[in-house]
Amino acid sequence: MNDSDVGLLYIQKHWDSFLSGFKEFVSIPSISTLPEYKGEVLHAAQWLEKYFKKLNFHRVDLIDTGGHPIVFAEYKEPNPVMTLLIYGHYDVQPVDPENEWETNPFQPTIKGDYIYGRGVSDMKGQLYAQMFSIQAWLAHNPLPIHLKYIIEGEEEIGSPNMQMFLNKYKDMLKADVVLNCDGGIFAPDVPSITYGLRGLVYFELELKGPKQDLHSGQYGGTIRNPIHVLCELIAKMHDENGKVTLPHFYENVRPLSEEEKTLLAQIPHSDEEWKKFVGMSQLYGEAGYSTIERIGVRPTLDVNGIIGGFTGEGAKTVLPSKASAKISMRLVPDQEPEKIEEYLREFLQQHCPTEIKWKLALHSCAPPAVMNLHSPYMQSAANALSTEFGKKPLFRREGGSVPIVAWLQQILGIDTILLGFALPDDGIHGPNERQNLPLLKRGTRVYYNLCKELLNMVRK
Amino acid sequence: MNDSDVGLLYIQKHWDSFLSGFKEFVSIPSISTLPEYKGEVLHAAQWLEKYFKKLNFHRVDLIDTGGHPIVFAEYKEPNPVMTLLIYGHYDVQPVDPENEWETNPFQPTIKGDYIYGRGVSDMKGQLYAQMFSIQAWLAHNPLPIHLKYIIEGEEEIGSPNMQMFLNKYKDMLKADVVLNCDGGIFAPDVPSITYGLRGLVYFELELKGPKQDLHSGQYGGTIRNPIHVLCELIAKMHDENGKVTLPHFYENVRPLSEEEKTLLAQIPHSDEEWKKFVGMSQLYGEAGYSTIERIGVRPTLDVNGIIGGFTGEGAKTVLPSKASAKISMRLVPDQEPEKIEEYLREFLQQHCPTEIKWKLALHSCAPPAVMNLHSPYMQSAANALSTEFGKKPLFRREGGSVPIVAWLQQILGIDTILLGFALPDDGIHGPNERQNLPLLKRGTRVYYNLCKELLNMVRK
Repeated sequence: MNDSDVGLLYIQKHWDSFLSGFKEFVSIPSISTLPEYKGEVLHAAQWLEKYFKKLNFHRVDLIDTGGHPIVFAEYKEPNPVMTLLIYGHYDVQPVDPENEWETNPFQPTIKGDYIYGRGVSDMKGQLYAQMFSIQAWLAHNPLPIHLKYIIEGEEEIGSPNMQMFLNKYKDMLKADVVLNCDGGIFAPDVPSITYGLRGLVYFELELKGPKQDLHSGQYGGTIRNPIHVLCELIAKMHDENGKVTLPHFYENVRPLSEEEKTLLAQIPHSDEEWKKFVGMSQLYGEAGYSTIERIGVRPTLDVNGIIGGFTGEGAKTVLPSKASAKISMRLVPDQEPEKIEEYLREFLQQHCPTEIKWKLALHSCAPPAVMNLHSPYMQSAANALSTEFGKKPLFRREGGSVPIVAWLQQILGIDTILLGFALPDDGIHGPNERQNLPLLKRGTRVYYNLCKELLNMVRK
Repeated sequence: MNDSDVGLLYIQKHWDSFLSGFKEFVSIPSISTLPEYKGEVLHAAQWLEKYFKKLNFHRVDLIDTGGHPIVFAEYKEPNPVMTLLIYGHYDVQPVDPENEWETNPFQPTIKGDYIYGRGVSDMKGQLYAQMFSIQAWLAHNPLPIHLKYIIEGEEEIGSPNMQMFLNKYKDMLKADVVLNCDGGIFAPDVPSITYGLRGLVYFELELKGPKQDLHSGQYGGTIRNPIHVLCELIAKMHDENGKVTLPHFYENVRPLSEEEKTLLAQIPHSDEEWKKFVGMSQLYGEAGYSTIERIGVRPTLDVNGIIGGFTGEGAKTVLPSKASAKISMRLVPDQEPEKIEEYLREFLQQHCPTEIKWKLALHSCAPPAVMNLHSPYMQSAANALSTEFGKKPLFRREGGSVPIVAWLQQILGIDTILLGFALPDDGIHGPNERQNLPLLKRGTRVYYNLCKELLNMVRK
């Protein structure tokens, strides 16, 4: 780190102001999936609007999408050397199970190196660190990079309006490269760049048996119980080797290149630590693959939720009319989400008894993506990390899905640099989500370095 | 029907007063399983207390059980020829799914021949009809039968305090025979007597995987998902012939006698009507048995409820920490509830992967019971029905559980006459529970006839 750099000094000096802004941002419960939080989601968008206006951005708009708005912010120097499109999201996941939180999820609380709260890691912390690096830059320097921010409020519900938005505003969004800070880092002292992401298809499957709930004594044992059938279907979705049994499921899975195999093998993963973190005595997954491969390069199927019959306290002897499950698949190149839906329907057609009616609804859908490992932008990002951490970053493929990355490739033809300073054990989407603060400060410096690297690259 | 009988005339003349009392009784939402209804459950007990006091019963008490009270009411003539113990319950099931009710479950509503409301059939209607027959008797005649009522408020939660109560008040409860009106009738014009009941064990099974909810992208495919494991366990609980696979499950099932086979074969059951009523295109159950046998003489296992992960609206990509199910078994003689719990534990030990922790809790437990078909009391009941319906009743074994019947046999050594005028399609425990009113009126007359028959029998 070059301590004499005014920008880096700014980050150091104004870190408390960063923290107070960060806490303010996290305090807004912008849960996009729950209709009753609609006002709070808007509130978070307005908070960003105010921030960019204060930084004297030349254009700041909340763009209506039909759902939650997209914050568009633009900073233009007269003679920009390049255009950087920065993507982020300001919405967060719900907080249930709420009673498992040790602090109020919307009163961000610092304990030791960590700050706790919903969205601190995914991704308000990541986004605000990048924004703060620009603030640090602009405090002392002109920035001859044309900046365009698109920050959406619907990432956690599958970005239902994003593709339409990208298509509609193609010209406005033109850029050389995208910076997306929704990635993670391998470990606090192991810098990494995510160059691949799994896709996602998320379904709701509802089964209906008898026309209404019945007495399990009067009718039990004479008709199919839709809970039993749902369980049988789910049980059949994997074989005894942990493989997904949907027909054709693995057909288009692209084999790993030798270069990728070599890169992935460098990741210092520990199954023992993984077990410790999840709190289980054994790992389990598709036979024949390592944990790193199971997460990043193999597709999976998980039931994310199930409900049916009487679920209150106590006992009710009911033979339920309905049962349903939320079922999602993580996809890898070149699996196609649309095809996967067909395969699931084929599976249900084949295995669901005819007297049980099934209904399948698609909640969200995102294609998988893999980026060019050899672009100069990827090199700039690697340099920005090396400068801060004093070592070369790992390159990895992540298990999560960031659909925007594939859409930006498909619709605007732009590759994404995916960075981030979220740790695997931040507990995102679960209770007690946290973010390592010293790491986030390093991240802010990395984003600052990235501006320098991009300028150097262009000027070469 | 002997129209000149003053009691039967009384029932005819005062039917409107019966209906208004009945509606009042049903309007009290005495849902025993929901703690927030505790006051209403007590309210129903007090309503009964008032009723018996008005009839000049010699003793009326609400007896504390630790849970909801038992109403004890006693009517003694100086020289009784016998003692009849009448059992009933004043509590009802919850009303969920509430949005499927077409009327307010606690504003009983008459439409055509039916009255709709929670508890109209199970069993406030049945109980009140019997009580009204006594009111009709006492309006004109002395009754040389010593009457003892025990009416509990915990039947729908498995009568957790009843065994203790029966043991504690053995002397007070001495009687020649029990009349229990919680049975049903085969069809409006097909009188029937239930002489056998299935037992019930009701469990809650909870599985725990990772120590907290995790992101399904970051962890999916690397550890066991407790929903998957729960589904696999449930799927394994039946084989492809619809047989329960718990070890030793069928070991003590008593084979049917030739007499019983003949009696059960007389039941004019129609699979087509059964399908139509449940709204399914096919029936399903243990291979090799008829529907009548599957309901009454074969044990079953049903999942009554299941829940795990995210079950709200929309999508949440969570790998859940927990999943649980309510699992109950209907038992037949000579299966023992305690043994069944052992078998289930053995099954779970055998099939649940070690890294998934399971916890099994017993919610309720009731032994199965079969009554002596040849007792004079059974004959009296048959005569009371024949007089009203002009034909002999069917004898049948029911799928539901009335644990009190077995307990009264075991603890007090008394057999039960199980009558009732609930129809199979009354929708008890589900939405839109109903009771056929003309049938209930016939039932009131049958109970009146039964007093006569018992007196005749004793005097013979």
